[in-house]
Amino acid sequence: MTKNNSIAEELFRRTAAYAPGMNFEGADKPTTEKPWAKWLEAELGFRNHWYPTEASRNIPDNGHKMIKLLGEDILFLRRAGQLYAIEDRCCHRGTRFSIRPICYTDDTITCWHHAFTFNLDDGRIRTLLNDQNSSLIGRKGIKAYPVREEKGIIFTFVGDIEPPPLEADVPVGFFDEDTAVCVADPYVVHSNWRLGSEGGYDPGHHFIHNWSKFSINARIAMTFGWTSTQESLLKTCHYETSGTGPSGFTRVASETSMSVDATIPGRNGSPSKKVVLPIAGGQTQSEIEMFGAMDFATKVGAWLPCALTVDPWPFPGIIHNEYYVPRDANSHYYFQCGWTKVDNEETADEWTNGQLGQVRWKIPVAEDFTVQDAEAREGIEKFYANEDGWKQEQIAAFDIELLMWRVFAGENCRGIQQADHTRGLFKR
Amino acid sequence: MTKNNSIAEELFRRTAAYAPGMNFEGADKPTTEKPWAKWLEAELGFRNHWYPTEASRNIPDNGHKMIKLLGEDILFLRRAGQLYAIEDRCCHRGTRFSIRPICYTDDTITCWHHAFTFNLDDGRIRTLLNDQNSSLIGRKGIKAYPVREEKGIIFTFVGDIEPPPLEADVPVGFFDEDTAVCVADPYVVHSNWRLGSEGGYDPGHHFIHNWSKFSINARIAMTFGWTSTQESLLKTCHYETSGTGPSGFTRVASETSMSVDATIPGRNGSPSKKVVLPIAGGQTQSEIEMFGAMDFATKVGAWLPCALTVDPWPFPGIIHNEYYVPRDANSHYYFQCGWTKVDNEETADEWTNGQLGQVRWKIPVAEDFTVQDAEAREGIEKFYANEDGWKQEQIAAFDIELLMWRVFAGENCRGIQQADHTRGLFKR
Amino acid sequence: MTKNNSIAEELFRRTAAYAPGMNFEGADKPTTEKPWAKWLEAELGFRNHWYPTEASRNIPDNGHKMIKLLGEDILFLRRAGQLYAIEDRCCHRGTRFSIRPICYTDDTITCWHHAFTFNLDDGRIRTLLNDQNSSLIGRKGIKAYPVREEKGIIFTFVGDIEPPPLEADVPVGFFDEDTAVCVADPYVVHSNWRLGSEGGYDPGHHFIHNWSKFSINARIAMTFGWTSTQESLLKTCHYETSGTGPSGFTRVASETSMSVDATIPGRNGSPSKKVVLPIAGGQTQSEIEMFGAMDFATKVGAWLPCALTVDPWPFPGIIHNEYYVPRDANSHYYFQCGWTKVDNEETADEWTNGQLGQVRWKIPVAEDFTVQDAEAREGIEKFYANEDGWKQEQIAAFDIELLMWRVFAGENCRGIQQADHTRGLFKR
Repeated sequence: MTKNNSIAEELFRRTAAYAPGMNFEGADKPTTEKPWAKWLEAELGFRNHWYPTEASRNIPDNGHKMIKLLGEDILFLRRAGQLYAIEDRCCHRGTRFSIRPICYTDDTITCWHHAFTFNLDDGRIRTLLNDQNSSLIGRKGIKAYPVREEKGIIFTFVGDIEPPPLEADVPVGFFDEDTAVCVADPYVVHSNWRLGSEGGYDPGHHFIHNWSKFSINARIAMTFGWTSTQESLLKTCHYETSGTGPSGFTRVASETSMSVDATIPGRNGSPSKKVVLPIAGGQTQSEIEMFGAMDFATKVGAWLPCALTVDPWPFPGIIHNEYYVPRDANSHYYFQCGWTKVDNEETADEWTNGQLGQVRWKIPVAEDFTVQDAEAREGIEKFYANEDGWKQEQIAAFDIELLMWRVFAGENCRGIQQADHTRGLFKR
Repeated sequence: MTKNNSIAEELFRRTAAYAPGMNFEGADKPTTEKPWAKWLEAELGFRNHWYPTEASRNIPDNGHKMIKLLGEDILFLRRAGQLYAIEDRCCHRGTRFSIRPICYTDDTITCWHHAFTFNLDDGRIRTLLNDQNSSLIGRKGIKAYPVREEKGIIFTFVGDIEPPPLEADVPVGFFDEDTAVCVADPYVVHSNWRLGSEGGYDPGHHFIHNWSKFSINARIAMTFGWTSTQESLLKTCHYETSGTGPSGFTRVASETSMSVDATIPGRNGSPSKKVVLPIAGGQTQSEIEMFGAMDFATKVGAWLPCALTVDPWPFPGIIHNEYYVPRDANSHYYFQCGWTKVDNEETADEWTNGQLGQVRWKIPVAEDFTVQDAEAREGIEKFYANEDGWKQEQIAAFDIELLMWRVFAGENCRGIQQADHTRGLFKR
Repeated sequence: MTKNNSIAEELFRRTAAYAPGMNFEGADKPTTEKPWAKWLEAELGFRNHWYPTEASRNIPDNGHKMIKLLGEDILFLRRAGQLYAIEDRCCHRGTRFSIRPICYTDDTITCWHHAFTFNLDDGRIRTLLNDQNSSLIGRKGIKAYPVREEKGIIFTFVGDIEPPPLEADVPVGFFDEDTAVCVADPYVVHSNWRLGSEGGYDPGHHFIHNWSKFSINARIAMTFGWTSTQESLLKTCHYETSGTGPSGFTRVASETSMSVDATIPGRNGSPSKKVVLPIAGGQTQSEIEMFGAMDFATKVGAWLPCALTVDPWPFPGIIHNEYYVPRDANSHYYFQCGWTKVDNEETADEWTNGQLGQVRWKIPVAEDFTVQDAEAREGIEKFYANEDGWKQEQIAAFDIELLMWRVFAGENCRGIQQADHTRGLFKR
């Protein structure tokens, strides 16, 4: 039930008035409350979604790890091969289980403080070891989080509703049988998750990658950023929503214009200066032409709740997929993985666990190219966190794609995380 | 003028409705404001009480130390053998004396900033060295705190009223002529003091001591926590208030039931599992029986403002005494001492200053057994400080003893410390 | 247009009621709102003034430095020899330029994030490298700060009005052709700037310098602080305001009384004790007399927005000049320089860049004597920041000079910095 261009057109119509220079005949008049009001509320993330959380390998059998998602402290444990995710807070007096997790049986956890014992799967109180007839048994409990593991990734559902299929929250292609996935260890970036979500597909941000070692070494001048015209934008950008597949958009980048030089005009009669991108500046004319001749036709996709795909990247045949998983108001986990198509188990294993995924995706991208992205998000965090940035920002024409995504994401998400959720005030 | 059981019965009646499974015919109906409302106010401690503050040995002659009690910065000094405690804040412009304490005479302190000179005993301005006719002299001043030293402990009175005798705020027996006291250096625990006060006698917390090296090495399985029935509770728990002696309770532990095993029921037809305490799990049946045969008959006492006694502990003939002295909203000093009876000065000295107190009390208890207690308090601090824990906690049956103490302590204390007191807004 | 004594008399009349012991026939009655209300508002500094910011040498050609003034993040750069100061926050999305400042031309800066390019001199958008026809060009921009360099010091104007001449904000004599200036590197002191401004000329604070190595080694007993009588104060203290010169006051110190000893009265029949200043205490009578015979006739001046001069100090022929430059609510830069008169360029260079300024001013003063001043400000910061000190302070007679300055400074400044300014909400 995809509704491609019509969604993009509607989003364009609703946001054009806010992007200087985007003149659109039928554009909505600007209003006091911006059309992306829900995005502004979503400081702590979108509730009722699945989130990639950790590489499966990092929680081995009998292991455990406390991870904060959308402000909620969650304890992940694997017992008898089964993965569980529970609220890291005893319902009795708030003791953190993760300080000393005790599992007397493979499907229970006993609080090390007062011996309350809980089911790992649904969080209900199984028994009190010091009061085995307590009326609390079976009635009270902690929150248990639905988890699912696919292709070496732990996904967690944070919300109160009956979880929809994981497939609705992960970009298309991930579940294909012949897709192999290499997973990097997630790390914490000190900015709100929305700055990550916007920054990943931001058409104007490519300039930062002129300082990525990958671009420098591969001699790829990264442009000053793209600016789409109204026509090219509606031609290249396809939004979709669907009951079972992910909601988001794909942008076919080859349609947008790029340039390796620009001009800084002079003033008061002094001459203008032609500026060449630093990487291109060091190259011969034939090198530049050769690069221009390559047609990457890279497609970028942004998907609810917080995913990005770049197809292909960094080399043909590889898809880069990253997520900006909300941790708290001022930080998110940068979760990155690389996909490739494989036709046998041996190659799949080489990609996922061996050196193939390392040299073709993880080392050039997760350990190199995207470091600049994380730095850029941290470089604007202060503005948005402390300086009223959501109101003070000065939108440029190319930012209309951000505005469209803000409206779309805020209106198609399944809920907004509230501060109360982070204090444990949710349905158990 | 002790009123034993009648107080306990009244407390039981007023709190039974909040402890699931405690069915008591004449119990009060639950109310919107809990009967322990005053306990909830006492984040910064109880005002107008004496508090143990430091080992006397740690403030030697001509020495000084700044210590924060109930949020108030207090400077302790000893001059010509006399101990003084004064507000660490010049009344002129707030300079901290402790940065450079200058005592030109044995009974004055001169502020290093503008030479205001104060009496050490009552805090009045004695003179201004640069304005010896100032009208401020004798009229204005800083707060001076009553102090008293007993058995190597400095006690400080924090409040505004005429101090009652120290004896009213220290557990019975401490002042006995044949009681010798070994004092450990107090240390800061990062939790509110009330979590300490509740945790010390909490009948359900013993489980944590299965991971204390003392219990492990002494092979004492510490139970899963006790649960008192209504009958046993009223039989073993004796509350008292008195004009001259301390207010609080004593619980005779031998009357409560203990067990080294418990059962985790199975689900959906799978079998139940019998769980044995880890320490007991490694012991032979005869060892377990031998331990069960020992009758410790340990008495636990909780006393205003924030004291605990365990008699005997860790060995017969020794009383463990500890205090949770409020420091600020999120931390308290853990002040511990061990008592024993002595019949001559030499033994007293061996206990207090020599190795006897070290090996019989300080090393096994203050340096070992109670480390788990401090850890447990810090493990629930976040819940009570940030997650609305005082409202969200899920009381169990055995917690009724905490509720009774909360009501008793809140209603029998001499006052509640306010935030204004910590900023110096008190009677001087 | 100087109005000397009349201003001082008016200030005295308005503040006398608040200084105990200052009885003045025509004094104004005390009011609920203190006459120095504007001083109390000026937590973040006085707006629309020039501030010394850095030694010129510390921002060399092609160099840059981010400095926070009055809560505003400012990027200083020197390009082609020209110094610029701009808001360190891109108007687009708040990116900090200082993370990677890129100047493709000598008079522009290009944001490393989205390639917005700004004039360095007026902050307007010169172009967008990725959208060279953007309607934002020339219309929008960042704040550019007027800067001026004199005698090796960078001065910055923080405000919105047309800047008055720098001469109006710098003490008299600085601009004299034969004045050479030695500049110390400014450093951060962790107190509000007003505590610095008050502390510098505070007649009661000299006591602290008995612990300065300079005083100890030079054997200068620093007194217990001065207390001016009403008569001496009005005789020695001259206030001035002027359209073109600086506004402030000069106090001729030689008129005030000093003493190297004082008496602490005894109590209850015990004897009084004569206290001698510690430095004087170690000296022979003839040494003390010799020191008393020296007539320094030191003049102290305090000038808007936040300057102090001490003439001479630390030796005849040298003027010490310091500033307490607001950084944020809880810290300021301590900016110090030393002046001397020179009659040729070689001596000027020796003073400014060679060893002459080092041994005659910088080492004894900025690296030694004033360390106690910075310590004193930090010693009262907690009182004024957290303990309601502006209301709780207990004014003494000698503090009337502080009160007079508070009234004068608050009423003669050009504006008060607001919290909104620190978030970028100012005229651009």
